[in-house]
Amino acid sequence: MSREEELKKEVTVQPNSLVIERPKNGEEKTDSFSCSYRLIEPFSYLSHDGNQNRALLILNQEIDLDLIPLWELSSIVVCADGAANRLYEYFANKPNLTKDTCAQLQSKYIPNYIVGDFDSIDKEIAQFYKSQGAHLIEQSSEYINDFSKAILCIQLHFQFLANGEAWPDNIEVENGLSQIWETKFSNLSSIPIKVNTLSAIGGRFDQTIQSINQLYILHQTAKNLEIFFHTHNDIIFLLYKGVNYVAYPSKTTFSRMGDKIPPTCGLLPLSNKPIILSSHGLKYDVKHWKTQMMGYVSSSNRIVGETGFIVECSDDIVMNIEVDF
Amino acid sequence: MSREEELKKEVTVQPNSLVIERPKNGEEKTDSFSCSYRLIEPFSYLSHDGNQNRALLILNQEIDLDLIPLWELSSIVVCADGAANRLYEYFANKPNLTKDTCAQLQSKYIPNYIVGDFDSIDKEIAQFYKSQGAHLIEQSSEYINDFSKAILCIQLHFQFLANGEAWPDNIEVENGLSQIWETKFSNLSSIPIKVNTLSAIGGRFDQTIQSINQLYILHQTAKNLEIFFHTHNDIIFLLYKGVNYVAYPSKTTFSRMGDKIPPTCGLLPLSNKPIILSSHGLKYDVKHWKTQMMGYVSSSNRIVGETGFIVECSDDIVMNIEVDF
Repeated sequence: MSREEELKKEVTVQPNSLVIERPKNGEEKTDSFSCSYRLIEPFSYLSHDGNQNRALLILNQEIDLDLIPLWELSSIVVCADGAANRLYEYFANKPNLTKDTCAQLQSKYIPNYIVGDFDSIDKEIAQFYKSQGAHLIEQSSEYINDFSKAILCIQLHFQFLANGEAWPDNIEVENGLSQIWETKFSNLSSIPIKVNTLSAIGGRFDQTIQSINQLYILHQTAKNLEIFFHTHNDIIFLLYKGVNYVAYPSKTTFSRMGDKIPPTCGLLPLSNKPIILSSHGLKYDVKHWKTQMMGYVSSSNRIVGETGFIVECSDDIVMNIEVDF
Repeated sequence: MSREEELKKEVTVQPNSLVIERPKNGEEKTDSFSCSYRLIEPFSYLSHDGNQNRALLILNQEIDLDLIPLWELSSIVVCADGAANRLYEYFANKPNLTKDTCAQLQSKYIPNYIVGDFDSIDKEIAQFYKSQGAHLIEQSSEYINDFSKAILCIQLHFQFLANGEAWPDNIEVENGLSQIWETKFSNLSSIPIKVNTLSAIGGRFDQTIQSINQLYILHQTAKNLEIFFHTHNDIIFLLYKGVNYVAYPSKTTFSRMGDKIPPTCGLLPLSNKPIILSSHGLKYDVKHWKTQMMGYVSSSNRIVGETGFIVECSDDIVMNIEVDF
């Protein structure tokens, strides 16, 4: 049997619209889905909820999406090294802005922290943000990448805040953040934080893959974090081992034509093992389907669930949803 | 021991410039590298060599690099479905072109084949390219992705050419290419072909990962192909199980400041198993080093070998090299 014939047998082609109820705790097992589930709301950043800890993390690649809505909803903003240049340039490159308006915006949107080995940040831009109140935290270690340094900074910020402690004045410049995190907090936090991240995906390919690697590792080592990568094209996040219900008010939340054309998505087995998948609410639904790199990977799939869909997986798996609004 | 301390022990930090001789067949084992090796020349597309079969494959994402040098060196050009629109728009979007010059360029750069389910290609653009001599090959199967359809088309083109046969007139529209390939050529070819691919990486993330998946699979199923993905930022390709020597005339071939600042690279274990790596000629060289997703991944590494470097790996691994010229 050819790969194609095999696939045809294993896949259920769904209509373009389905209503998928969220699993109820305690209800009897129906279909292949067990009872308890993890709720994932990738588009919650589009609505205000003052109770959530939200960090915006900007990495050092061109910012090619609308920064402001994400910024306005974040409790803190962290730039990784040269990302501070990107932020500054973001306003300078906006079309049809007068010089004054540009300068006003640059003075309004000041990151709380800039962290990294400072080999990429422009000295004048660093000085500007420092004068406006940003914390500049040099961390020179070559064995921790910028993304991880910024995550440490976010963890420490919310942990000190919860403890009523001030941000420490003198942080050792090689890897002080890591030392504080390990010794003072034993690498653990129970404070839930959503981290919306820009420029993690889509630039240099080794950075893209390192971001994905960190996404997996952080779910093992820092379970208090929920990380979303935003690109010009899509939003990328982890589905967790077990049953996941991915919820949204409607498909038009993230796709202009979402009520007419099912938005595109993928389920991407980028960890180090094969994954068994079942789904309900996708155009090409599967049941107990083995996916792995060098084997089958569900790409160019589509979301047909009106307000949500279910994915059950034998291990954490990366999902992307095309965003177009 | 922290991850950082572990890494420090395992990694050899090299000077910014090293001369790494290519391994010689038959010479005694030196260092950790065995004798026979695979030569990889990722930048050979920058120089003419009339003896090579070279295909340019364009996928359906915005073309954000200089297309012309790649085109001029290719024996054939294949557009996957909507990539034909991208090609047409590429010239329309070029700054400072008169309408006449734009139309001239659009008529000059005609792909040999356009292949796909034709749900994305603009009808007028399809008609235009057809009138100019392009082969339009509809393949409607939803179980083969556009990239794979285009690869089939490239394989068949060179196979028919080698056999002195004409391209068949009537190809079954669901998956005729696949049928011909399986029945007539038993999925096998010994004709070496370099495939330079645009827009495989950096668009929608599920497409990026499917491209990588196909890169691994095709090396198992179509060993006659050598595939390179080109992006605005880098070039991405496979290093093969065993010893690889990656060669270039000089680092300035692919990096403007390459003789002063070592260009960035990564080694990305995206198959379904851990890989043992040894390298010679990178800034952070390793010996018998285990790399896998959810573990250590060598990103933000740098190339210090003046005209080449060596990587030995226990299985195929993806490499990216930053390109800036």
